Amino acid sequence: MKDITIGIDIGGTNTVFGFIDSEGKSWGEGSIPTQTQERFEDYLKDLYKAIDQTIKKSEEDLHIIGVGIGAPNGNYRTGTIDNAANLRWKGILDLAKLVSEELKVPVKVTNDANAAALGERIFGGAKDMSDFMVITLGTGLGSGIVVNGDLLYGHDGFAGEVGHIIVRPGGRECGCGRRGCLETYVSATGVKRTAYKMLAKHLGDSSLRDVPFNQLTAKMVADAANKQDLLAKEIFAYTGKMLGEALANVATITSPKAIFFFGGLAKAGDLLFDPVRETLEKNILFLYKGKISLLASELGDDAAILGASALIWNEQL
Amino acid sequence: MKDITIGIDIGGTNTVFGFIDSEGKSWGEGSIPTQTQERFEDYLKDLYKAIDQTIKKSEEDLHIIGVGIGAPNGNYRTGTIDNAANLRWKGILDLAKLVSEELKVPVKVTNDANAAALGERIFGGAKDMSDFMVITLGTGLGSGIVVNGDLLYGHDGFAGEVGHIIVRPGGRECGCGRRGCLETYVSATGVKRTAYKMLAKHLGDSSLRDVPFNQLTAKMVADAANKQDLLAKEIFAYTGKMLGEALANVATITSPKAIFFFGGLAKAGDLLFDPVRETLEKNILFLYKGKISLLASELGDDAAILGASALIWNEQL
Repeated sequence: MKDITIGIDIGGTNTVFGFIDSEGKSWGEGSIPTQTQERFEDYLKDLYKAIDQTIKKSEEDLHIIGVGIGAPNGNYRTGTIDNAANLRWKGILDLAKLVSEELKVPVKVTNDANAAALGERIFGGAKDMSDFMVITLGTGLGSGIVVNGDLLYGHDGFAGEVGHIIVRPGGRECGCGRRGCLETYVSATGVKRTAYKMLAKHLGDSSLRDVPFNQLTAKMVADAANKQDLLAKEIFAYTGKMLGEALANVATITSPKAIFFFGGLAKAGDLLFDPVRETLEKNILFLYKGKISLLASELGDDAAILGASALIWNEQL
Repeated sequence: MKDITIGIDIGGTNTVFGFIDSEGKSWGEGSIPTQTQERFEDYLKDLYKAIDQTIKKSEEDLHIIGVGIGAPNGNYRTGTIDNAANLRWKGILDLAKLVSEELKVPVKVTNDANAAALGERIFGGAKDMSDFMVITLGTGLGSGIVVNGDLLYGHDGFAGEVGHIIVRPGGRECGCGRRGCLETYVSATGVKRTAYKMLAKHLGDSSLRDVPFNQLTAKMVADAANKQDLLAKEIFAYTGKMLGEALANVATITSPKAIFFFGGLAKAGDLLFDPVRETLEKNILFLYKGKISLLASELGDDAAILGASALIWNEQL
């Protein structure tokens, strides 16, 4: 019999899950679409069914010791999903309690960036670190912060929203209803917005001038930059500078040994991280100079599942 | 026999110490000037002598179980003072090791704001809180942050320098060598600088127009504001707004249940805290709205000693 935890990642489009052992090895995975059911309880029934089928297919006799779930606005303190903007089910969803009653094992919930940070600590590049941070760069900017060896949850379970630090008071409109949040500059969407700003500001030729806003992607900008499109390179320089300035301030609060980057936009690599590194070192308080490593996440495509399962392994190992 | 810890606060001018029991009661106090001796070891000898004399004067038989020290750039992880700008002894001072060898008890070191935060948790208004923050408002702005029940030290022992968050890139010159740090706006010195900015900007009459920069104090500005001097009131409104904006960002990272204020400038009371409260609530991410209490420290004049002694009691209680 093999002890495993179920790692579940609830995304806006799909929910993926996997059976993960204490070494981070997967013993089976599956997925269902997230938002087909009108009632949250019916969605969970679909999920239980998919999990059950995947377990039955396994050649190993799997023993579930717990379930870890990464979800939008997942609250570790209460085990609930609280008013997630990109899910169809509104209000407070009593996720941990419902799943625990069904599967009869402990269930832990947090958001996807916190799960990624725990995954990095248990299975990835932060195994020996008790103070570090993971930044997820996708449509938005998420963050998971580990201090003194534990995730920083804050008194209400919602700490660590680095994407919503206001870096330019009165700046770009943010989905949160305010202006100037970091993720309006540093995210795939932020890169698109910066692209249009630069196209307006400069006269230079660029392949990006032929793409309408709604078709533009951060990957197109990265590809153009890698082909030495000067305007595209300036877009990444600006994005990296905004991130480096913000991280210099965050480091003043949490003093991390390393900052790990993860997610689609992170694939831009040195195009983004060279200016981040330069701006971070230039702007940081002398106490922290030269002390912080900027690293790529060591978790692969299974990061979301590994991170969620780490919510349980973190308390067992 | 009475178990006590010695709380020592090393300030730029004076070093004060006290014998504190587990209830926060003082069983004797003393002080020596900090910077009379050229050698750090000679200063420590003066300190041991003063402590010894104070113990001998006590009517109670005191049993020292440990020593906690708050010091500029005090490093909890190493027990050292690292390159303190306002002490005459340069480089790395091996404070905990030296004192521990002399007094034969455990010695813990941190900076004064961290000590104040622990003092608030053990003896003050944060007894039931595991996530909160203390802001000390004096010549500069210090901060001690408690998360998951422990001080946030970061990987190098120097986390929690909220005063050195850059709030205005390219803004006011800071003693740290950079520009735009929060403490250049929010501190007794910051209030003076804002006073001169406002005197330059506005035409209105003010009692502050008769005071040269080098004689102006934050208290004078507070006194003028309390006498309804409009310009002085605007100085505090500006200072409070800068602090409220910065705390909204810090809360996005640490999500504290309460923020405690301590120090000379904090005595300005609602003159400062009304605009802080208003700006904080206006600027904060919806997740945290209405959740954070702004409170005055419950530690009195002995705060520095109580906080330092809490470094030891925190591990005993």
